[in-house]
Amino acid sequence: MNSVVNCAVYENGRKVRDLDINHLEQMKILAGQLIWIGLLEPSQEMLAPLQRQFGLHELAVEDAYRAHQRPKLEVYGDTVFVVMKTCQWLDGELALGETCFFVGRGYLISVRHGKSLSYRSVRERCENVPGKLKKGEDFILYALMDFIVDNYFPVIDALEEKVEELEGAIFENRDQHRDILSEISILRRDLLAMRHAVAPLPDICQRIIRFDVPAMDKNTQPYFRDIYDHANILMDRIEALRETVKSVVDSKMLMVSMRQNEVMRKLAAWAAMLAVPTAIAGIYGMNFTNMPELTWRYGYFTVLGVIVVICLALYWRFKRSGWL
Amino acid sequence: MNSVVNCAVYENGRKVRDLDINHLEQMKILAGQLIWIGLLEPSQEMLAPLQRQFGLHELAVEDAYRAHQRPKLEVYGDTVFVVMKTCQWLDGELALGETCFFVGRGYLISVRHGKSLSYRSVRERCENVPGKLKKGEDFILYALMDFIVDNYFPVIDALEEKVEELEGAIFENRDQHRDILSEISILRRDLLAMRHAVAPLPDICQRIIRFDVPAMDKNTQPYFRDIYDHANILMDRIEALRETVKSVVDSKMLMVSMRQNEVMRKLAAWAAMLAVPTAIAGIYGMNFTNMPELTWRYGYFTVLGVIVVICLALYWRFKRSGWL
Amino acid sequence: MNSVVNCAVYENGRKVRDLDINHLEQMKILAGQLIWIGLLEPSQEMLAPLQRQFGLHELAVEDAYRAHQRPKLEVYGDTVFVVMKTCQWLDGELALGETCFFVGRGYLISVRHGKSLSYRSVRERCENVPGKLKKGEDFILYALMDFIVDNYFPVIDALEEKVEELEGAIFENRDQHRDILSEISILRRDLLAMRHAVAPLPDICQRIIRFDVPAMDKNTQPYFRDIYDHANILMDRIEALRETVKSVVDSKMLMVSMRQNEVMRKLAAWAAMLAVPTAIAGIYGMNFTNMPELTWRYGYFTVLGVIVVICLALYWRFKRSGWL
Amino acid sequence: MNSVVNCAVYENGRKVRDLDINHLEQMKILAGQLIWIGLLEPSQEMLAPLQRQFGLHELAVEDAYRAHQRPKLEVYGDTVFVVMKTCQWLDGELALGETCFFVGRGYLISVRHGKSLSYRSVRERCENVPGKLKKGEDFILYALMDFIVDNYFPVIDALEEKVEELEGAIFENRDQHRDILSEISILRRDLLAMRHAVAPLPDICQRIIRFDVPAMDKNTQPYFRDIYDHANILMDRIEALRETVKSVVDSKMLMVSMRQNEVMRKLAAWAAMLAVPTAIAGIYGMNFTNMPELTWRYGYFTVLGVIVVICLALYWRFKRSGWL
Amino acid sequence: MNSVVNCAVYENGRKVRDLDINHLEQMKILAGQLIWIGLLEPSQEMLAPLQRQFGLHELAVEDAYRAHQRPKLEVYGDTVFVVMKTCQWLDGELALGETCFFVGRGYLISVRHGKSLSYRSVRERCENVPGKLKKGEDFILYALMDFIVDNYFPVIDALEEKVEELEGAIFENRDQHRDILSEISILRRDLLAMRHAVAPLPDICQRIIRFDVPAMDKNTQPYFRDIYDHANILMDRIEALRETVKSVVDSKMLMVSMRQNEVMRKLAAWAAMLAVPTAIAGIYGMNFTNMPELTWRYGYFTVLGVIVVICLALYWRFKRSGWL
Ligand SMILES: [Mg+2]
Ligand SMILES: [Mg+2]
Ligand SMILES: [Mg+2]
Ligand SMILES: [Mg+2]
Ligand SMILES: [Mg+2]
Ligand SMILES: [Mg+2]
Ligand SMILES: [Mg+2]
Ligand SMILES: [Mg+2]
Ligand SMILES: [Mg+2]
Ligand SMILES: [Mg+2]
Ligand SMILES: [Mg+2]
Ligand SMILES: [Mg+2]
Ligand SMILES: [Mg+2]
Ligand SMILES: [Mg+2]
Ligand SMILES: [Mg+2]
Ligand SMILES: [Mg+2]
Ligand SMILES: [Mg+2]
Ligand SMILES: [Mg+2]
Ligand SMILES: [Mg+2]
Ligand SMILES: [Mg+2]
Ligand SMILES: [Mg+2]
Ligand SMILES: [Mg+2]
Ligand SMILES: [Mg+2]
Ligand SMILES: [Mg+2]
Ligand SMILES: [Mg+2]
Ligand SMILES: [Mg+2]
Ligand SMILES: [Mg+2]
Ligand SMILES: [Mg+2]
Ligand SMILES: [Mg+2]
Ligand SMILES: [Mg+2]
Ligand SMILES: [Mg+2]
Repeated sequence: MNSVVNCAVYENGRKVRDLDINHLEQMKILAGQLIWIGLLEPSQEMLAPLQRQFGLHELAVEDAYRAHQRPKLEVYGDTVFVVMKTCQWLDGELALGETCFFVGRGYLISVRHGKSLSYRSVRERCENVPGKLKKGEDFILYALMDFIVDNYFPVIDALEEKVEELEGAIFENRDQHRDILSEISILRRDLLAMRHAVAPLPDICQRIIRFDVPAMDKNTQPYFRDIYDHANILMDRIEALRETVKSVVDSKMLMVSMRQNEVMRKLAAWAAMLAVPTAIAGIYGMNFTNMPELTWRYGYFTVLGVIVVICLALYWRFKRSGWL
Repeated sequence: MNSVVNCAVYENGRKVRDLDINHLEQMKILAGQLIWIGLLEPSQEMLAPLQRQFGLHELAVEDAYRAHQRPKLEVYGDTVFVVMKTCQWLDGELALGETCFFVGRGYLISVRHGKSLSYRSVRERCENVPGKLKKGEDFILYALMDFIVDNYFPVIDALEEKVEELEGAIFENRDQHRDILSEISILRRDLLAMRHAVAPLPDICQRIIRFDVPAMDKNTQPYFRDIYDHANILMDRIEALRETVKSVVDSKMLMVSMRQNEVMRKLAAWAAMLAVPTAIAGIYGMNFTNMPELTWRYGYFTVLGVIVVICLALYWRFKRSGWL
Repeated sequence: MNSVVNCAVYENGRKVRDLDINHLEQMKILAGQLIWIGLLEPSQEMLAPLQRQFGLHELAVEDAYRAHQRPKLEVYGDTVFVVMKTCQWLDGELALGETCFFVGRGYLISVRHGKSLSYRSVRERCENVPGKLKKGEDFILYALMDFIVDNYFPVIDALEEKVEELEGAIFENRDQHRDILSEISILRRDLLAMRHAVAPLPDICQRIIRFDVPAMDKNTQPYFRDIYDHANILMDRIEALRETVKSVVDSKMLMVSMRQNEVMRKLAAWAAMLAVPTAIAGIYGMNFTNMPELTWRYGYFTVLGVIVVICLALYWRFKRSGWL
Repeated sequence: MNSVVNCAVYENGRKVRDLDINHLEQMKILAGQLIWIGLLEPSQEMLAPLQRQFGLHELAVEDAYRAHQRPKLEVYGDTVFVVMKTCQWLDGELALGETCFFVGRGYLISVRHGKSLSYRSVRERCENVPGKLKKGEDFILYALMDFIVDNYFPVIDALEEKVEELEGAIFENRDQHRDILSEISILRRDLLAMRHAVAPLPDICQRIIRFDVPAMDKNTQPYFRDIYDHANILMDRIEALRETVKSVVDSKMLMVSMRQNEVMRKLAAWAAMLAVPTAIAGIYGMNFTNMPELTWRYGYFTVLGVIVVICLALYWRFKRSGWL
Repeated sequence: MNSVVNCAVYENGRKVRDLDINHLEQMKILAGQLIWIGLLEPSQEMLAPLQRQFGLHELAVEDAYRAHQRPKLEVYGDTVFVVMKTCQWLDGELALGETCFFVGRGYLISVRHGKSLSYRSVRERCENVPGKLKKGEDFILYALMDFIVDNYFPVIDALEEKVEELEGAIFENRDQHRDILSEISILRRDLLAMRHAVAPLPDICQRIIRFDVPAMDKNTQPYFRDIYDHANILMDRIEALRETVKSVVDSKMLMVSMRQNEVMRKLAAWAAMLAVPTAIAGIYGMNFTNMPELTWRYGYFTVLGVIVVICLALYWRFKRSGWL
């Protein structure tokens, strides 16, 4: 696997030429030029020359190499270091990745980890609108962050669908043969992961918009406010889903209890209807010498009739009171 | 469907004439004049000339075209962009829509999406009070926002009524034949939707009141404080309803458990009263050769009496202890 | 019903004379004088001349007329507009009302709605301490707000007593014949109403103390801090009660489950003790030709003895393990 | 009961002489001197002369006389007024009291209400370290507050022990004969009371440390930070206990349900094992003329054997599946 | 046990020589030199000379001696006092300790309490990078805090594993023979302890980064931001675990209820299938003289057949409806 996905220099929003990352002398930042480097799970050795060339801070490089960070924005001198979680819905499961960006005047380096879509399509889209790409490295940062955030939406859609499908199954009592506890547990874990991915984004965008972050120009601020907006919409949906999942558990619990009640009542009703003939028959099964009814001509039929009448009466009462 | 609902120019609070949105030269903002445009789900092509004419930001126009935003207020240069959710109670269901406003010195454009009432009545009411309409575009914004917020109240009233009716049904045990779980789930969803519609409003109003938002004058501030107030009252009611719905679930659960207890006790009591004759009769149904009681003259009647006495004693005990 | 409860002019803390609200020329605010007007559910026509005379804002007057506001403090130019909820405990139920105040240099107008105590006693108490009344309209505002807040305490006392009585009844299992679910639901609603009445008060007092609110002098600040204090004590008690009510539901639920367990165990124990003789007797009730025990001299008594021994053994075991 | 517990004047950290509170002329604050007065539930008449002498605010004196305040710090001109809750663990119960302090340049007055330890020991400890006592009235305030806060710890220890003992009893199923619901309810009430006592302390200390509070010098700030620290540790422990109590209820509920399950299974298993012989015996107890098995030589023994085999098989199955 | 673990003086990032803590004259801070002292549960007598030598505040020394503090950062004049909780996973249990640091220009003193790893490895690692060690006492503070925080991760890993293992066991119903209530209770206690250890860290780091804390230089700020980051990641994981533990209890409860339902249904089904032959046989066990069926040739076999048919029909119905 080649770790250098792409590396090119742009001028006035148009690609000038591809660069070879191994030739550091090509990496010189010239006025009016913009170097855009895309890396995929690079080795420590690959990052070292870039660190020297662009003056990246060792702690930021360590984070970029090791991954497993929370989404964050950090300023090291003239460099902005941004970490984001990426996510996709693959084969019915949530697949997480991580991307970080080094941004400074004249360059942007993206470092991708884990499962995530390539940023080739973002690069192509940017190259198609030179008028915007010439806004510089902050616009590229926006384009990449926007791409990542846009990819959260289908995941949330999928989770929403799963929650709704599960809720429907529980309400319509179609969940007998499903392991709904695991399903709920997985949903909770996925929603928590999504929340950890999205929750820090509004603050990150606010910092870019409100404070003096290096390399971020005033005219790209509305773009980051757009991401801020998307992040808030996502947070609302995630929180709503979390609440719904919680209430699904309560609903299932209530449903189980209501069913239990029904079963208990049915059990009680039928038990009563079978216990009555048993008890009466038991009495006429006694072996006393002197039991006048036994010799009555229609004694047997009378008793049978009494049993039937009692059982029908019970049945009617239970039916009426809703136990059957 | 015509997307241009209305378009007119006002001067000193009085309508001067209707404008044709397709004649951009009519859209020139003259000193002392005010253009008020109302659109309904416009196409992208319809918005483009307005964007150029009034210098609207592309991201705001995109939001206005696509809808599905959270309520928000954004400032783009001299333009204020406001998004609000609209809602109505239609055929016993919550119907949601979205409206956004572009407001700048001398113009206001409203863009309506989804199910929502026409703003014609607002326009008429404004035209009837030229003394207020001459306050300008910020007063129109107030009038429209106030109209939207006023329409939240009947929805909350309807939800409140539903919650109370449901609570009553559960307490009086009249909910046997209702799918209360779905009803609760729908109530939760509706309340969540209302909350998402209302929750951002206090902040939006505060921003208009406290900060320097373009086109918003000092003398219209009390009006927005009035909306702020309404939004807070709505939020209180929504939160109270959410809490009540939660406690309704707890109540139902408790009621189910208490009923279960009752059923169990009744079942136990009747089981005992039928098991006693069965056991005793079983004993005298044994076929031992030497069972003296069998030959007693009143053996049978004695046993019958014993059974009746025991059963009555049990009945009395169960009655007294509340099991029956 | 006369809407003008009282209207008088004060000078140096002493009443000068009563005024007739219909003679607007009497309503002129003179230096060193203080007009105190008390209204009860006034009509819109009654409020209009006061609005003109004292320069009240139309939105405030609308709130004062319509009522159904949240407690709040609003500044309109030189006028302070304060809304408070009033409450009383009438015939074992919470009765809510609303009062609002217009305060400006030289005047205070109170407008009372719904069930609430008259402010006559406050006026009398104030007139008895001219040294304090001469502090002016802010002191009257304090005296009225203090009166309202003092009337919250007996209500909270009553609610506390109800909650404790209910908790006691549940713990001592004396709640069989009560509709505890409705009782809890009503308690929750009342506590929520009290919370809505009290929660905004600390902020209102803080604004009077900390910020430059018209007509509020420095030397009355400690008085409003006293109301602030009371409001906080009330909030603590309300929140504690809300928590207790929540835990009462949990306790009842737990108690129901524990009782259920007991019933189940008793049922199981007695079922076993009756099923054993039934089964054994059933066996010796079979009609096989060759059943040697049947012809034993003491077969019957042996079997009876075995049954008694088994039942006693079971009884002793169940007793020891706490099932009986 | 004498309300004046102690009253003395100090100079340079050493006691000069005791004062008689009834001789107001002795109460004059001289430069370099410090008057320390300790009162116990004083009458209103006793407080009046002190109010005049030290210029205390009437509202503060009212609070000091009436008690039932929340912990708070209030500044009235040059005087600081501090209220604290005191608590002790007496005979296995929480005993609450209240103490307030008036502190100004050259004097400190403590007013003690309800159950609380005497501050004599604090006075003695202070008199033993003149080097510290000469820091003045703010150091005495610290010493007294520190004493009160130190007395919270054994109470929290006792509550912690109770919670742990209760949790242990529930987990080991040793709680059959205890009224755990009342125990939990009392624990909740006590924890809530402790929380109300402790929660305002961090803010009170912060105000002394951060803001310009009269009579509080810079060099005593670290002492109040120490109290701040203790208050935070207490709050953490109280909150943790509250959470544990909540989870104890959940645990008990879960345990009850799990036991219920066990009982149900045992009941079901034994019911099955007794119902089988009953049913089979019933069949051979029928009185049909033509029942060939009845005349078989070993019919009876065969049936007995079948019953035993079926019961053993059932027993083994139930045992294996954990129902028995 | 020797309380002085290590004591040395450094210059330019390189160790100059070991010092003897008992020779106070060696403890003089020279320009360009750095004294690093490591103590392990020192006696009060050992701390006293250091207090005098470095001018440590008595309250800080008291905290350092007594331990049982919350994590905190306090500034006393030119000295920074930092307290941290240390933790390890020893023999499947959480072992807690405490360390505090005194940091001033030219010195750092660490005081270790309870179970915690020695800081020898940190010292060695620092001595290996003189280029960093020469940054001074703030870098050492970072190195030690980073070491402590890094040691939190394996503990959280262990807790996470335990929670997941427990969840799996519950979902797959493999938890019959475990005391899951105690396990959950211990997990809750451990997570609470971890939370108390980690929660104050972000604030501590922020104070070092944002405010003017003595002895903390600008160029070590990114290092403390790195700890800040780790603390936030830990907090996220702790909170997620706490939530998961809560949902595990809910899941277990739901599972118990669902199983209960199953048992009830099975019990009801089998009870019905055994009660039917019992009742029918009871009827033909009656001793009436005139019971025509008894004399039918195939009466017995017919009844047997009827019983079998009814039982099979019931079995099939119960099977189909999922009760069996
Ligand atoms: Mg949440
Ligand atoms: Mg939420
Ligand atoms: Mg939410
Ligand atoms: Mg919630
Ligand atoms: Mg939530
Ligand atoms: Mg809420
Ligand atoms: Mg709430
Ligand atoms: Mg909520
Ligand atoms: Mg609320
Ligand atoms: Mg709520
Ligand atoms: Mg809750
Ligand atoms: Mg609360
Ligand atoms: Mg609450
Ligand atoms: Mg609370
Ligand atoms: Mg509270
Ligand atoms: Mg609370
Ligand atoms: Mg609460
Ligand atoms: Mg709860
Ligand atoms: Mg809490
Ligand atoms: Mg808490
Ligand atoms: Mg709480
Ligand atoms: Mg907590
Ligand atoms: Mg918590
Ligand atoms: Mg919590
Ligand atoms: Mg809590
Ligand atoms: Mg909860
Ligand atoms: Mg949490
Ligand atoms: Mg959380
Ligand atoms: Mg949480
Ligand atoms: Mg939660
Ligand atoms: Mg939580």
